[in-house]
Amino acid sequence: MHQQDFTKPDGRALTLYGLHPVRVDSEIPSPSPDPVDARPVMRWHPLRSEWVMYAAHRMGRTFLPPPEYNPLAPTSDPEHPTELPRGTYDIAVFQNRFPSLTLTAPDPGLGPADTRAGVGACEVVVFSQDAGGRLCDLSDEQIGLLLQVWADRTTRLAATGKIKSVLAFENRGVEVGVTLHHPHGQIYAYDHIPPVQATMLRSAEAYHADLGRPWLADFVPQERASGERVIRDDGEALSVVPPFARYTYETWVLPARPVGLLSELSDAERASFARVLRDALRRLDGLFGGRMPYLMTVHQAPLDGPHPAFPLHIEIYPYLRAPGRMKYLAGTEQGAGEFANDKYPEAAAQELRAVNLEDVKLDGGDQ
Amino acid sequence: MHQQDFTKPDGRALTLYGLHPVRVDSEIPSPSPDPVDARPVMRWHPLRSEWVMYAAHRMGRTFLPPPEYNPLAPTSDPEHPTELPRGTYDIAVFQNRFPSLTLTAPDPGLGPADTRAGVGACEVVVFSQDAGGRLCDLSDEQIGLLLQVWADRTTRLAATGKIKSVLAFENRGVEVGVTLHHPHGQIYAYDHIPPVQATMLRSAEAYHADLGRPWLADFVPQERASGERVIRDDGEALSVVPPFARYTYETWVLPARPVGLLSELSDAERASFARVLRDALRRLDGLFGGRMPYLMTVHQAPLDGPHPAFPLHIEIYPYLRAPGRMKYLAGTEQGAGEFANDKYPEAAAQELRAVNLEDVKLDGGDQ
Repeated sequence: MHQQDFTKPDGRALTLYGLHPVRVDSEIPSPSPDPVDARPVMRWHPLRSEWVMYAAHRMGRTFLPPPEYNPLAPTSDPEHPTELPRGTYDIAVFQNRFPSLTLTAPDPGLGPADTRAGVGACEVVVFSQDAGGRLCDLSDEQIGLLLQVWADRTTRLAATGKIKSVLAFENRGVEVGVTLHHPHGQIYAYDHIPPVQATMLRSAEAYHADLGRPWLADFVPQERASGERVIRDDGEALSVVPPFARYTYETWVLPARPVGLLSELSDAERASFARVLRDALRRLDGLFGGRMPYLMTVHQAPLDGPHPAFPLHIEIYPYLRAPGRMKYLAGTEQGAGEFANDKYPEAAAQELRAVNLEDVKLDGGDQ
Repeated sequence: MHQQDFTKPDGRALTLYGLHPVRVDSEIPSPSPDPVDARPVMRWHPLRSEWVMYAAHRMGRTFLPPPEYNPLAPTSDPEHPTELPRGTYDIAVFQNRFPSLTLTAPDPGLGPADTRAGVGACEVVVFSQDAGGRLCDLSDEQIGLLLQVWADRTTRLAATGKIKSVLAFENRGVEVGVTLHHPHGQIYAYDHIPPVQATMLRSAEAYHADLGRPWLADFVPQERASGERVIRDDGEALSVVPPFARYTYETWVLPARPVGLLSELSDAERASFARVLRDALRRLDGLFGGRMPYLMTVHQAPLDGPHPAFPLHIEIYPYLRAPGRMKYLAGTEQGAGEFANDKYPEAAAQELRAVNLEDVKLDGGDQ
């Protein structure tokens, strides 16, 4: 992995990553020269016992810009600078211009509820210079690089001493409000352990304490033995529809060896993980033909560890439960925190295994 | 409140409720004579520590039927029976034909993960015989009746001895996948305390233990003293945008006296609660003009109590964060369990207070 750090005209940090040495052929741009004046705050929800982030400056953020302006493409017209320079690189990461959390959030003073500074970080991860492509159009090597980039961002954020949990994700699909179609994801970094990560850690630690081994050390052999829910097994990594899937075609990508962080994967494990991830994403697009809207989240152990019980894994939530039929989170999901799923994971996995990958277009021109 | 119980031809239970004596003028219908053969199961999610409900028979459920067939309207053509008879009544409740949970769910036997019977109940609550109306088109008295109906269903479900938590909700808007436009809500009843209710109970009990009084006994006076977030104060009930709102125009309806269940409200308190609820819903429709898509959830104490710390309240999550702009739950909401909100609750409450209710159409013909 090659990488190079830059500072944008408005003060934000940019890192360019490449499989080959990085070279920049233009100025480092920013859509606006004005420094980001984010003053995010958090307030405590006393009944759900979770923080809520307020970022009042976000209301003006980019929304379905006209096709001629793509802030994530390399700048072609210096009169209309984008977020990225021209040059040789594969993946770019920069601080979000509309962050919900910042490392330097000022103390908001007294407020209603428990109010405090919105300390954390929000980064944008641009997967490719190709605006029309998909994540699964990248090569296995490029997806392997993305896994390294996510690991590097996690390590850097941990090194600030202010971050306890890092969530990388990709939210894809105009159906779920995605405003920029250039393939990209985001990173949210929290100065505390958020509810989902806290529950996962507590659950995994209880399992480890009860049975003397990490949950993943049992789950992978069990899924392999059954075979019913495995989508692809690449040896050092595999994909499954978990037996407790909340979304109809929910897909998890798991390492065969239990680790908590992407940075703990060996080169061979990372390569295997990348192949399985690309395979999983291509199958979802092939399932109904066309781009499956989805949310993909990367779950790593909290950074105040070590937490040997926490299982590194990727969860993909495809939003279609049948062709043209979206899954919406309604009463039971939002009001009680429990999902209703119309199809057994065994049936969903069978359909995903049956997708003919030869039929999945690679040019991304299917939307 | 008047009420009368019936059994449908397919064996499901139906109750008709009225402000005046109930009278039925036709056979009790069902869209199909076939008994419901639901065999819902639950599986345990070992990392999120929550149950997931599987109801494989739900895939065939009604989806955007042609306008001439409305299963929630009184049957006009006996050749095409609906769910409801003709007659004199205001509100109808019947068992869902496509339930995610049933009181008689059979033991599924061994399965992957922790698998058990999906014991619980799913009911449909039809708010009115008028297919084109909205909940907020009902009179204050009719909304008061709905509060009584929700209370009655909760009492009846508790009396089965199998139910620990009841969630009544309304999910409204084609934007969020609502398939039947006739004004109606649903009830999910669980044989355990789901994650949201468990967290609320734990949080409220910790507050009560720390400060010696229920959370609501402090929250209501604090909101009244500040006034910044109060939308309407009717004396025995009030509406606020809570200081920790997760959705931009999130609105809570609260009783001024802390109680845990709807059945604990006095007649005067219930009447006040109904007036405030109707006012809150009308303001949301008036905010941008047109029907605001929303999820409304009714939070009552778990039924294995008493739980004097648990605050009865209604939460309304409007899905628009600005005209034409939906709030979607993306990475941080689903992957970490923390919401990002673009507007402070104080600003949202000011906008909701400023809605001119004279401008809100009452005929429901604005969609």
